[in-house]
Amino acid sequence: MDKMKCAVLGATGVAGQQFIEALAGHPWFEITGLYASEKSANKKYKEACTWHSPTPLEEAVGEQKVQLLDNVGSDLKQYEIIFSALPSEVARQIEGACAKEKPVISTAAAYRYEEDVPVLIPEVNAEHAGLIKVQQKGRGWKGFVVPGPNCTTMGLAITLKPIADSFGIKNVFMTSMQALSGAGYPGVPSLDIIDNIIPYISKEEEKVEQEAVKILGKCSGSSVANAGFRISCTCTRANVSDGHTESVFVETEKHAAVEDVSAAMERFNSECKKKFGHLPSAPERTIVIKEEENRPQPRLDRELGGGMSTVVGRIRKDAVFENGVKYVLLSHNTKKGAAKGEVMAAEYLHKAGYF
Amino acid sequence: MDKMKCAVLGATGVAGQQFIEALAGHPWFEITGLYASEKSANKKYKEACTWHSPTPLEEAVGEQKVQLLDNVGSDLKQYEIIFSALPSEVARQIEGACAKEKPVISTAAAYRYEEDVPVLIPEVNAEHAGLIKVQQKGRGWKGFVVPGPNCTTMGLAITLKPIADSFGIKNVFMTSMQALSGAGYPGVPSLDIIDNIIPYISKEEEKVEQEAVKILGKCSGSSVANAGFRISCTCTRANVSDGHTESVFVETEKHAAVEDVSAAMERFNSECKKKFGHLPSAPERTIVIKEEENRPQPRLDRELGGGMSTVVGRIRKDAVFENGVKYVLLSHNTKKGAAKGEVMAAEYLHKAGYF
Amino acid sequence: MDKMKCAVLGATGVAGQQFIEALAGHPWFEITGLYASEKSANKKYKEACTWHSPTPLEEAVGEQKVQLLDNVGSDLKQYEIIFSALPSEVARQIEGACAKEKPVISTAAAYRYEEDVPVLIPEVNAEHAGLIKVQQKGRGWKGFVVPGPNCTTMGLAITLKPIADSFGIKNVFMTSMQALSGAGYPGVPSLDIIDNIIPYISKEEEKVEQEAVKILGKCSGSSVANAGFRISCTCTRANVSDGHTESVFVETEKHAAVEDVSAAMERFNSECKKKFGHLPSAPERTIVIKEEENRPQPRLDRELGGGMSTVVGRIRKDAVFENGVKYVLLSHNTKKGAAKGEVMAAEYLHKAGYF
Amino acid sequence: MDKMKCAVLGATGVAGQQFIEALAGHPWFEITGLYASEKSANKKYKEACTWHSPTPLEEAVGEQKVQLLDNVGSDLKQYEIIFSALPSEVARQIEGACAKEKPVISTAAAYRYEEDVPVLIPEVNAEHAGLIKVQQKGRGWKGFVVPGPNCTTMGLAITLKPIADSFGIKNVFMTSMQALSGAGYPGVPSLDIIDNIIPYISKEEEKVEQEAVKILGKCSGSSVANAGFRISCTCTRANVSDGHTESVFVETEKHAAVEDVSAAMERFNSECKKKFGHLPSAPERTIVIKEEENRPQPRLDRELGGGMSTVVGRIRKDAVFENGVKYVLLSHNTKKGAAKGEVMAAEYLHKAGYF
Repeated sequence: MDKMKCAVLGATGVAGQQFIEALAGHPWFEITGLYASEKSANKKYKEACTWHSPTPLEEAVGEQKVQLLDNVGSDLKQYEIIFSALPSEVARQIEGACAKEKPVISTAAAYRYEEDVPVLIPEVNAEHAGLIKVQQKGRGWKGFVVPGPNCTTMGLAITLKPIADSFGIKNVFMTSMQALSGAGYPGVPSLDIIDNIIPYISKEEEKVEQEAVKILGKCSGSSVANAGFRISCTCTRANVSDGHTESVFVETEKHAAVEDVSAAMERFNSECKKKFGHLPSAPERTIVIKEEENRPQPRLDRELGGGMSTVVGRIRKDAVFENGVKYVLLSHNTKKGAAKGEVMAAEYLHKAGYF
Repeated sequence: MDKMKCAVLGATGVAGQQFIEALAGHPWFEITGLYASEKSANKKYKEACTWHSPTPLEEAVGEQKVQLLDNVGSDLKQYEIIFSALPSEVARQIEGACAKEKPVISTAAAYRYEEDVPVLIPEVNAEHAGLIKVQQKGRGWKGFVVPGPNCTTMGLAITLKPIADSFGIKNVFMTSMQALSGAGYPGVPSLDIIDNIIPYISKEEEKVEQEAVKILGKCSGSSVANAGFRISCTCTRANVSDGHTESVFVETEKHAAVEDVSAAMERFNSECKKKFGHLPSAPERTIVIKEEENRPQPRLDRELGGGMSTVVGRIRKDAVFENGVKYVLLSHNTKKGAAKGEVMAAEYLHKAGYF
Repeated sequence: MDKMKCAVLGATGVAGQQFIEALAGHPWFEITGLYASEKSANKKYKEACTWHSPTPLEEAVGEQKVQLLDNVGSDLKQYEIIFSALPSEVARQIEGACAKEKPVISTAAAYRYEEDVPVLIPEVNAEHAGLIKVQQKGRGWKGFVVPGPNCTTMGLAITLKPIADSFGIKNVFMTSMQALSGAGYPGVPSLDIIDNIIPYISKEEEKVEQEAVKILGKCSGSSVANAGFRISCTCTRANVSDGHTESVFVETEKHAAVEDVSAAMERFNSECKKKFGHLPSAPERTIVIKEEENRPQPRLDRELGGGMSTVVGRIRKDAVFENGVKYVLLSHNTKKGAAKGEVMAAEYLHKAGYF
Repeated sequence: MDKMKCAVLGATGVAGQQFIEALAGHPWFEITGLYASEKSANKKYKEACTWHSPTPLEEAVGEQKVQLLDNVGSDLKQYEIIFSALPSEVARQIEGACAKEKPVISTAAAYRYEEDVPVLIPEVNAEHAGLIKVQQKGRGWKGFVVPGPNCTTMGLAITLKPIADSFGIKNVFMTSMQALSGAGYPGVPSLDIIDNIIPYISKEEEKVEQEAVKILGKCSGSSVANAGFRISCTCTRANVSDGHTESVFVETEKHAAVEDVSAAMERFNSECKKKFGHLPSAPERTIVIKEEENRPQPRLDRELGGGMSTVVGRIRKDAVFENGVKYVLLSHNTKKGAAKGEVMAAEYLHKAGYF
């Protein structure tokens, strides 16, 4: 079977490199176009970019010539999927132009908050893909844009889903300790983070608070109604390379015993495996529950499930809420929380017939 | 004027070293006895301990001979104050024995949860010192034990105090990112914290949840009634040498506008300065409010006020609570949160006539 | 074909865990015995040890029961190879006892400096294996002890080998920046290494200076004559989890142009591939030469060749020596430099008929 | 006595901030002009710069208005000393223009390698100040330019000086582990240094190799003859905020016993104290020799002597050289190795009558 031809936009940046790593040896998709700005265009990819991953760049991709981003519009017929890792300044215009013809799967925030755009996490809100039709009709596009959530929203939404389904959610408090790779490259200066915590990440809290209730909302065919709970976040940067840790306090509608929360998450795992287990990038377990009292830890747990599992630990009764639990989660921000998560979303959309 | 003669128990450990640093050049107190276990006894202090601070050890203290801890009981008449940095296993027995005769000011947890023992932070609950009389009477002691709070409780209690006084508190959620020095020495293995967060600190959450409501409780002469709010904590360890960062969400009884919270904290500063400004270890400002959006940061802010100020930033309206704020605080865990904080408590008790 | 049955001594420590990781799924060897001290004996392995690697422990090994180290003597007939990760205090006695009957492949230093014991790195001194016969004859052993070098010696000896063969070596200066995992667990306290370099590692410099000339020496059948050059080392500890970096200055006998040194290393690679390429743990390239001016770097390069390649960069003419080069090398201290390197040595000895 | 009026060029950058910190409360010098590029000009200093030091910015300096760098030429008559922290691209032209009228003391490399320009370290080569006259005469300048050495050269030159004087030097090998602050701000990206060593710093090795022999050379009135030894360096970047560590191997002309090297350094200290002890920025001891086997360490020792002492440890006989020693040194790269070192040079030149 021929693989589907894909273009990667913003291919030389860190987010773009993560798409290339996520697509290496992919059984269904194949990178046939790499697009970047003028600085990189017309160079071999391996010369245009400084490769940041310990996993070596595939030889074949390294030899491909980088093309000028401005030209992608005229090349669209060559591709079946456009993966976009564009910075937000340019994402809106270029993703929109591509979506007139082709599906665009994106890590950028540009379209996330539009009414007719699903922020898609297959395990959580596959049914939101229905908005694609609304989007195409309303905008007159043959293709579409489907963005993933912010990397900090990802693990939170995945862990809240089985809790919401089994117990209902009233309120959520979350404090994150986020990895350096979330800020891209060069990103956080080393002098700012050595022996330090930075208790602020620009616009992050607003994104998480807004996205999580959209993702967990009900899709009524033509639109999504936000979930009926509230979230308050404080987002900090820690001296960790990859893997966002989040401390979560959840007030539930119904009583949620610790063992019932674990059981709900395991049921969720079973359903995910049934529905998505055939997708090449799906992990064996959507949520890995650690029983050790000092886990999850980024250095030890972030690569579980190939970086696609959300790792949860320390589930315990909350000390304030009448009904509620607190727990700690870990989500790989550049794998599940970015490019590899978007590749899995594309796998889902392909199997669901959206391409 | 002659200085008051002090003994330091557990002098060679990290907590003991911090007492020695906090008492260096002190205008009122002078170290005349250093006590430690058999391994160190009868050696010069500078040979018995591996000094961990970048601030060099005072020559005169370094030359003092370390004495056997078991002998402190028979030396008590030589001292006016006993500073205890004993590990919890031995603190209970030895501190109790010393308190029969002399005041014991301690960083250990051994007596913190007893009804007749104040967990004293002068700025927050100076009136709890009244329990000393109850303690002496009930136990038949001529001296007494006054412990300070856990290092993680310290900054939280100080910042909650003006909020409680001005707005009333209903609920508190707190996630800490704690410094390595909080675990003592050798403490946290480097392989456990490089490129990592450890989302668990043994017994820490229980201590904070229990101590904060006691410290902020009302003292009715003979006992303390816990404050009427609840706290839920998640305590984590971050790759930071000194300075505990805490992300706090507070639900208040009354509406608490951001500027009113700041104003309440500044009023609290003024009162503290009036009441405690003459104490040698008291900082210029009890709470330093940072206006920059990315502060407080441990590396930049922990030494403010000689490590005795609690630094607060990012005060903003909470997104969940009808009435409430969230903020980030930083407290120097080995200065205000441990030995130097206890030295200030001793200064207060001295001036208040308890010695 | 049946796999060879192996015991791992000191199985629960960090070095022992690395043997277990190195032997996971091994095509020739199979772990059938795990030995440790009383504290761990009679527990399931997964309960007896705190597993430190991000690579999860194999289920089957985790379920094996740990046996008491003192009993290994009576179990020897069950094993074909004994892998020893014992601490030096006990290694000498127990390895000797096992070697009376069976081959012992060890990461311990206990026997390294004995005249009849080869410090074996197959790529460098396979012919030293001839000492095994001398050892067996002289000691009346049916088995033997073959230790590997200190982890810091490993990369140095491998890179000096092609230089010595092509140009002759007169003098070597080496400064290492060593990884935390080299100190075991708990090893280096985090407070000692945060924002720091420790310019000393106990006995490390002496080991490297002594081992390198033995390993590169000529074996005349019954003994090894040390190589005729001198080495001076300064060994430091850096804030790196895995991978020892070494800055090397080599004075050569003959002129050694930079490109000739690279060529000599590449020829060495070809020979190693011919001789050892069939061994399961051998890397594709013994030495990987990086052309980028800022490599090798531990985080990016330590896993090359499955952690079994020595990575070399910055080969350039030395500024002092008439004839000489300087370069930087990186060697994975817990893989090539310890257990996995010893597993490869065992593979070689097996194929060479020593078992 | 009126203080001397000083301007700081490049005042808002990290190097400029270090001048401001080094001049805070200075008894002889006073900052009356702050110059920076267009982006900062006409703002209050505290608003124009992001202050990086934990030591708070002096209020009075923070309130000064930043002036446009291009205008400094017409303001020169207002100043007695110009401190330059300009980036190398602009340093050459602007420092030269200022030197026509006034003394320029600089941390920039622009003039370091000119024949008539001394690279001044008072303790090492005060007599090189004689070149100032040559420079003024040859160039027709009323002022002059005196740069300090590269931060990595500083500690090396200071420690080699007493060795050269007592034993003569033939060859030097040096490997540095340099601090992040040496790269300025934003400088090294955090993703590049977490769990890592970067074995390369652009142009650093060449600078050190060239400067050290000039600084230690003889000044014959009109020119400097380079010292007659050779240096070979490898410069690496480590995960340390401040303080360059250097591993040094020195071949001496005469036999140099370890205790004789220590004694030579202590004699050097005595002479330095006699000659420079009255300078406000001079440390009590130019070289601090640590006897502990695991020192110097950046985190513990960099602030000795107010960051102005070079800290030496592990002096021992070299294992290769017939005559020679090896040792480890630590030098504070942003204090002695940059602005504060240059302030001390200015203090010396003032007392020596060059202003």
